[in-house]
Amino acid sequence: MDAIWEKLIADMKKGSVIALSRLITRVENREQGWMDAMKQIYPDSGHAKLIGITGSPGAGKSTLTNKIAGSLVRKGYKIGIIAIDPSSPFSGGAILGDRLRMNELSDLKDVFVRSMATRGVLGGLNQSARDVAKILDAFGKDYVIIETVGVGQDEVEVVKTADIVLVVCVPGQGDSIQAIKAGIMEIADIFVVNKADRDGADQLTTDIESMLELDEGAGKSKPPIIKTIATKGEGIPELVEKTLDLIPSLDGRSLWKEERVRIELIGLVEKELVDRIKSNWMKNGRLDKAVKQIVNQEKDPYSVAEEILFPLASLWPKG
Amino acid sequence: MDAIWEKLIADMKKGSVIALSRLITRVENREQGWMDAMKQIYPDSGHAKLIGITGSPGAGKSTLTNKIAGSLVRKGYKIGIIAIDPSSPFSGGAILGDRLRMNELSDLKDVFVRSMATRGVLGGLNQSARDVAKILDAFGKDYVIIETVGVGQDEVEVVKTADIVLVVCVPGQGDSIQAIKAGIMEIADIFVVNKADRDGADQLTTDIESMLELDEGAGKSKPPIIKTIATKGEGIPELVEKTLDLIPSLDGRSLWKEERVRIELIGLVEKELVDRIKSNWMKNGRLDKAVKQIVNQEKDPYSVAEEILFPLASLWPKG
Repeated sequence: MDAIWEKLIADMKKGSVIALSRLITRVENREQGWMDAMKQIYPDSGHAKLIGITGSPGAGKSTLTNKIAGSLVRKGYKIGIIAIDPSSPFSGGAILGDRLRMNELSDLKDVFVRSMATRGVLGGLNQSARDVAKILDAFGKDYVIIETVGVGQDEVEVVKTADIVLVVCVPGQGDSIQAIKAGIMEIADIFVVNKADRDGADQLTTDIESMLELDEGAGKSKPPIIKTIATKGEGIPELVEKTLDLIPSLDGRSLWKEERVRIELIGLVEKELVDRIKSNWMKNGRLDKAVKQIVNQEKDPYSVAEEILFPLASLWPKG
Repeated sequence: MDAIWEKLIADMKKGSVIALSRLITRVENREQGWMDAMKQIYPDSGHAKLIGITGSPGAGKSTLTNKIAGSLVRKGYKIGIIAIDPSSPFSGGAILGDRLRMNELSDLKDVFVRSMATRGVLGGLNQSARDVAKILDAFGKDYVIIETVGVGQDEVEVVKTADIVLVVCVPGQGDSIQAIKAGIMEIADIFVVNKADRDGADQLTTDIESMLELDEGAGKSKPPIIKTIATKGEGIPELVEKTLDLIPSLDGRSLWKEERVRIELIGLVEKELVDRIKSNWMKNGRLDKAVKQIVNQEKDPYSVAEEILFPLASLWPKG
């Protein structure tokens, strides 16, 4: 591990936010030596609790996240926020988002916000988010909030490994049930009905309750439903109390810890493997050659894939 | 390749929908011999055009897809639909969805609908959808419609390789612009403002136009905006005409073909690699052992990942 990593880790441990920020960037970019850096950071992690916040676009997740962070800071906790932002060139992307949020939270010294764009990190989003969470944990954060839109498989996977998952719904958002059913109903530990002053808030609450009743046989306790108006701060104290109350009880979920480590380990190996293959292929021109052969109909993609995978046959034979 | 594959491929080529359906299932499940099967199927593909339809949950994508399919069938085309369904146990999942849609389309013999749940296919969704599209192509479909929610990175990747992409927006869906900006603005070839009889349809159209003007410098032609009321069939003829008109012109996008092959090839190798590692790890108990070591704090996940990746060092060295 080179001197830059050593210095960044040392400075981060001393509390430098700039070192923390640079460290995160380097790990996200998988710069040479990142695994050795993570090995050194890892033993300091294990203290922070992860709060996952998810819901459909326009549900008010960012505002809610900021208010929860504010409330936790006032209770004396140190907070990290990882905002997963499916950004587009139109929106200005993650960097603009960071600035806006930093302004809003600028009076709160103990909040560190990191946005991660989903563009260009295909297949590695979960792992990157988990690495960043570990670094924030090692930095001394008490709670790390991971905020993500709840409608993509990767986005849902990200919050699955959190210690507690808040699913945010809003009334009057098209077909409200359709918006929340998309794979996130079953991972909710708390339902938040945000924008609760809107028409349809009571109906939405009833709809969620009905769905939960269908699931009652499963033996797990029913997630509470809490109404909030995040922009006005209404309902936030109750939501934060409930969240803090629930976390210890969820910790006891059977096999939860092993399952989480399993998911993390597979994610880590997958991402590293894919990164290596891509960079090697691109470097030696093999990818370009193969692409041309397929375009010219000299070969089919399945034969090419098999050729590439052939050296692995002895190492990891076909299932 | 065993006799089951041979028979299924032969029957599929003769037009058996049951063989087609079983073939798709076996390829999706990566059953032994699937790559050889795909090699045999591949030369018959290359004719069908892929239409990607995406948008936020509740935008009416399914209804729109059904109407477009119906319209194309009446024009004499054979249609395949791949519906990517981020399903949950609450919704009944993909199978229920298939049945509902099949009922609606049952008078249309030339439509084949396949739903793919995103649960459990982490990281391989795109590749699975592409394999299914190839099979439908080889089966003789003229157009394959891939319908997916437009808010996850994987879900967006799926439609990126389509020949044309329709982005569906609806008025009054919370913060409408926020709902559509999520990484899909820039991949739209046509914008569809669905539920156009609702309040706010004109405002939404204006908002999209303003956003498109910001992007004008990029040199690509501005995507048309078409209003529809899918439930009543309004606007569908115009939308279908526009879609068929645009496809040939989009075909000429520079480097498009090579780029698509590149994405497909990387996706293919990635998914196969990850499948192999997982199945090998699970089989020989190595994963369980590694997980226990991490839980017991004997090792950190990064060291374990490096041990597993070590045999690859000579094959694919670190970037």
